[in-house]
Amino acid sequence: MILAVTLNAALDVTWGVDALEPRSSHRVRTTRERAGGKGINVARVLSALGHVPVATGLAGGATGRLIRDGLRTAHIRDAFVEVAGESRRTLTVVSGDDGDATVFNGRGPYVTPAEWHLFSRHYATLVTRARVVVLSGSAPPGLPVDAYAQLIATAAAAGALTVLDTSGPSLLHALEARPEVVKPNAVEAVDATGREDLARAAAELRTRGARAVVASAGPSGLYAITPTGTWRATPPERLVGNPTGAGDACVAAIAAGLEVGLAWPDIMREAVALSAAAVPCPVAGDVDTALYRRYLTDVSVEEAPARSPH
Amino acid sequence: MILAVTLNAALDVTWGVDALEPRSSHRVRTTRERAGGKGINVARVLSALGHVPVATGLAGGATGRLIRDGLRTAHIRDAFVEVAGESRRTLTVVSGDDGDATVFNGRGPYVTPAEWHLFSRHYATLVTRARVVVLSGSAPPGLPVDAYAQLIATAAAAGALTVLDTSGPSLLHALEARPEVVKPNAVEAVDATGREDLARAAAELRTRGARAVVASAGPSGLYAITPTGTWRATPPERLVGNPTGAGDACVAAIAAGLEVGLAWPDIMREAVALSAAAVPCPVAGDVDTALYRRYLTDVSVEEAPARSPH
Repeated sequence: MILAVTLNAALDVTWGVDALEPRSSHRVRTTRERAGGKGINVARVLSALGHVPVATGLAGGATGRLIRDGLRTAHIRDAFVEVAGESRRTLTVVSGDDGDATVFNGRGPYVTPAEWHLFSRHYATLVTRARVVVLSGSAPPGLPVDAYAQLIATAAAAGALTVLDTSGPSLLHALEARPEVVKPNAVEAVDATGREDLARAAAELRTRGARAVVASAGPSGLYAITPTGTWRATPPERLVGNPTGAGDACVAAIAAGLEVGLAWPDIMREAVALSAAAVPCPVAGDVDTALYRRYLTDVSVEEAPARSPH
Repeated sequence: MILAVTLNAALDVTWGVDALEPRSSHRVRTTRERAGGKGINVARVLSALGHVPVATGLAGGATGRLIRDGLRTAHIRDAFVEVAGESRRTLTVVSGDDGDATVFNGRGPYVTPAEWHLFSRHYATLVTRARVVVLSGSAPPGLPVDAYAQLIATAAAAGALTVLDTSGPSLLHALEARPEVVKPNAVEAVDATGREDLARAAAELRTRGARAVVASAGPSGLYAITPTGTWRATPPERLVGNPTGAGDACVAAIAAGLEVGLAWPDIMREAVALSAAAVPCPVAGDVDTALYRRYLTDVSVEEAPARSPH
């Protein structure tokens, strides 16, 4: 089983307006809402591939109830822990005139030490049934700085592999617990480590404890820097669309590959095909499964020289 | 008792961001939420004056529950009817750099004919206990175009006076039911009737059925065109602040005046003092009651020549 953790789950709301004009009043023409946060998006993609992932994390208030209702609608197993605070919303305002999107990200509920303790115990039970644990996104206020490190250590003690997709200090603090895979994008890797390029940043992340680093470098493809080698995988064509779901699809493919013990070149093929199949979808968490199957035969994977990521 | 009707109740949400920049991503720094919609704001002002208004209308979904929780917090009697659709939110994004506000207004839930019928029956019971009924704001999708006319007729049949604060076709269609007072602002009156100035627009509104028209004309004051005369009232000083709550405070004063049978010049004095006391408050529905009492002695009310509103 794959366990998808979203500590800061969100209700992703999209509002359509005629045109966004600061300092004026707008009529909202269309409204769309769904459960979101990176871990939930990963669970959605896994569901679309026929997996039966379990989603856990922290959710609270009326917004938390809507998020959990959304999991039920999406047929994702809900193992969330309720907190007293109100879960966050993200709002994307889309202009009808040019399709431009303006995004507002809520911060998330304050989580008390008692709530974190409760979650940690609940999670420790869940991981005993998991082969792979995906940990995605930011942490809400109130959590200890090493929250992800704690969760990775608990998973490792239970024999589960961990895939971590976060950035900044959350990423750095988690490394000491030796996650199996970290998946920053190139900019996040460079920002978190302060190194000058992806190759050096990935080496630094591995030195600090990550067994493997999978990092997207935009059009130049996806890199995996692992104990068994370094690979680069590229999609068959240049894709245009919504890039926000591609990262979550990539993480879903890595988790699915680790679960059945695929070799890295095969994981990379899956990851690039699935990411590419997410790009034409307007909402993160969706993939075009027919496109995914077609791309699988077209992705190019090559062993890359040790310093090739740039 | 004053009954305040809000057919399209809202959760008024305010988000603080550093600076609003279209097409970029924003972190929400502060969040404030409260029950809103013009009728609920009128009830808040009446509560602040020591009245015990009853608030009714249509509310649904998780947002509807938050609106009704907000009424309880504000000690306003909740006689809302639940609908299956989700109540709307309004969002005000305030930029930390310049304090500018950008507003998004949701449309509201689709209300089915069965839900409207249920509300109408419930309302018919409520109005038997009301001396004055305030009907404020837009109607949600699905309601008959003469929804306000129906509610005004029901109130009249039960012997209650009605004060209507809406605009556009909702205002025009309501007139046939002969409301006691309609309260557009000057622009709304001119827009709804297509006449060239407030005097002609007010005359038209009265010809079509309104017994009295109370209309704010910004800095030139508040006009009342009534069967017993035409009055103009002006505040003691030019006020700077948030004008959105002033209209709701004005309606609250008219309702309170009608309830105890004040003459029009006295109602006008109350209405201008209370509106002025709302302007310094950052949120619609709040009034500075000390300021209100001080202004009461300073408002100037004069009988205006029949055609003076411009």
